[in-house]
Amino acid sequence: MQSIAVIGVGLIGGSFALAQRRAQPTIRVIGIDRDAASLDAALRCGAIDEKGNFASVARCDLVLLAVPGRQIEAVLYNMAPYLHDETLLTDTGSTKGDVEAVARRVLGWRVTQFVPAHPIAGREQSGIAAASADLFDGKNVVLTPHADNKAAVVARSREVWQRCGARVIEMPADRHDAVFAAVSHLPHLLAFALVDALAKRADARTLFSFAASGFRDFTRIASSSPEMWRDIALNNRDALVAELDAYLEHVQQLRNEVAAGNGERIEALMVDAREARNRWLAGDLDHFDSAAS
Amino acid sequence: MQSIAVIGVGLIGGSFALAQRRAQPTIRVIGIDRDAASLDAALRCGAIDEKGNFASVARCDLVLLAVPGRQIEAVLYNMAPYLHDETLLTDTGSTKGDVEAVARRVLGWRVTQFVPAHPIAGREQSGIAAASADLFDGKNVVLTPHADNKAAVVARSREVWQRCGARVIEMPADRHDAVFAAVSHLPHLLAFALVDALAKRADARTLFSFAASGFRDFTRIASSSPEMWRDIALNNRDALVAELDAYLEHVQQLRNEVAAGNGERIEALMVDAREARNRWLAGDLDHFDSAAS
Repeated sequence: MQSIAVIGVGLIGGSFALAQRRAQPTIRVIGIDRDAASLDAALRCGAIDEKGNFASVARCDLVLLAVPGRQIEAVLYNMAPYLHDETLLTDTGSTKGDVEAVARRVLGWRVTQFVPAHPIAGREQSGIAAASADLFDGKNVVLTPHADNKAAVVARSREVWQRCGARVIEMPADRHDAVFAAVSHLPHLLAFALVDALAKRADARTLFSFAASGFRDFTRIASSSPEMWRDIALNNRDALVAELDAYLEHVQQLRNEVAAGNGERIEALMVDAREARNRWLAGDLDHFDSAAS
Repeated sequence: MQSIAVIGVGLIGGSFALAQRRAQPTIRVIGIDRDAASLDAALRCGAIDEKGNFASVARCDLVLLAVPGRQIEAVLYNMAPYLHDETLLTDTGSTKGDVEAVARRVLGWRVTQFVPAHPIAGREQSGIAAASADLFDGKNVVLTPHADNKAAVVARSREVWQRCGARVIEMPADRHDAVFAAVSHLPHLLAFALVDALAKRADARTLFSFAASGFRDFTRIASSSPEMWRDIALNNRDALVAELDAYLEHVQQLRNEVAAGNGERIEALMVDAREARNRWLAGDLDHFDSAAS
């Protein structure tokens, strides 16, 4: 690999660039971004070697799409004419079914060269200033190869992400979207909803003046980017609605146990939850096979 | 104040004893606990001067009840015969309406001497080993005085808690229980419910293997004591059920916006939630008056 294009030089794109350079100091990185200040900052911190535009893609072996979900389609249209047959494409979006569908529509047969990816890594801060070569070290990156990806292309994509220090896992896009609807998208919506509901009460001031550390941690993800999470909610709509319905039913049942004063059932649920969470924290995932069977 | 009895020498009771001694080194602290090992540890760390029993209360000016909610009634029965007319009583329970009702039933006219309290302070760890003289420094303690408390008794209770370093706030017990149902009890039940629901899925192992830092923080309070939170749910049942119903309706509305693909409404809710949370974190509570009006 000689040169790579990073489209979107924020936290994720910038960190990818720095991690690739850490693995291969001779690599040439071209940054592409509509925000000139981000490009300048990326140049200054050594994440990229030069500022480019979509035509620069023609000189690259690898293109990383690290732009917000809603911009992927426009970016694909703009860069598609400059792809050659060996160019490898991957992305960083939090939802994968929608990205695959867009790529298929825009790239046509060249979708063979595109292996969608979701790095499970982030930070409170965003932007190139927060980028770091070690952001992906030991983190999971989920690849969602599709039926038109040849094995060699998938293998090259794995290598690209492994060179960032990541652990690469493959699963189908629809499975990815169902899993992340449950463990990520659902809790984000629940946290946003709780803060919003309490903030709109007539006694909001009193309520927030007594909110403490439990509330702070429960709602931390409600300080996330509304633009990004709106897109995730829309792009993973079906899986998210299914999760919301299942959760609403589960909480309704718990509500009924509370209303009935059923202490034994309430405690049993809490004991099960605490045990599951503590085993998860301890890295003991084997437990879950027997628990669910 | 010459001597105090602390009934229940765990994290809260032990910290109260240490804080009182910090404020007044000459004070005599008598520890009462059914767990002999906790009493020994409290003696060793200097939280208490002697191990006592319920009869020891007769020698004390102040009694702190720092036992789990379900034990309060039995403890009140056992100590009531040893109270004299000047003994001040306070407690540390997370719910207050139920404590007042129990105290009224057991103590009769002596309920005049009991000023219920809820210190908003805690730690991940529990037990006397985690106790610390500074646990209450700068923390809120909510007093819920009732119609039978004379002003002088309430004033003495304020002083007692202020000597621990706490900021003392008064509100009626039913208002306290409504506020904490919203900002504390509700999120605890929601966190327990999410972990429990996912742990019981057939694909639990996969789900938990992709749960990341957002999930960890959202569910931190699901590692809390099931026994304690079962009691809180039962003791604050009416307020909690009202909060659960309001939240279920709010999430159902958000679910409908997601299902309808209504990006503008979803983003507006997220923007409002993030702004409210960030203002709260910044200590800007004045905002909430205008927001709710």
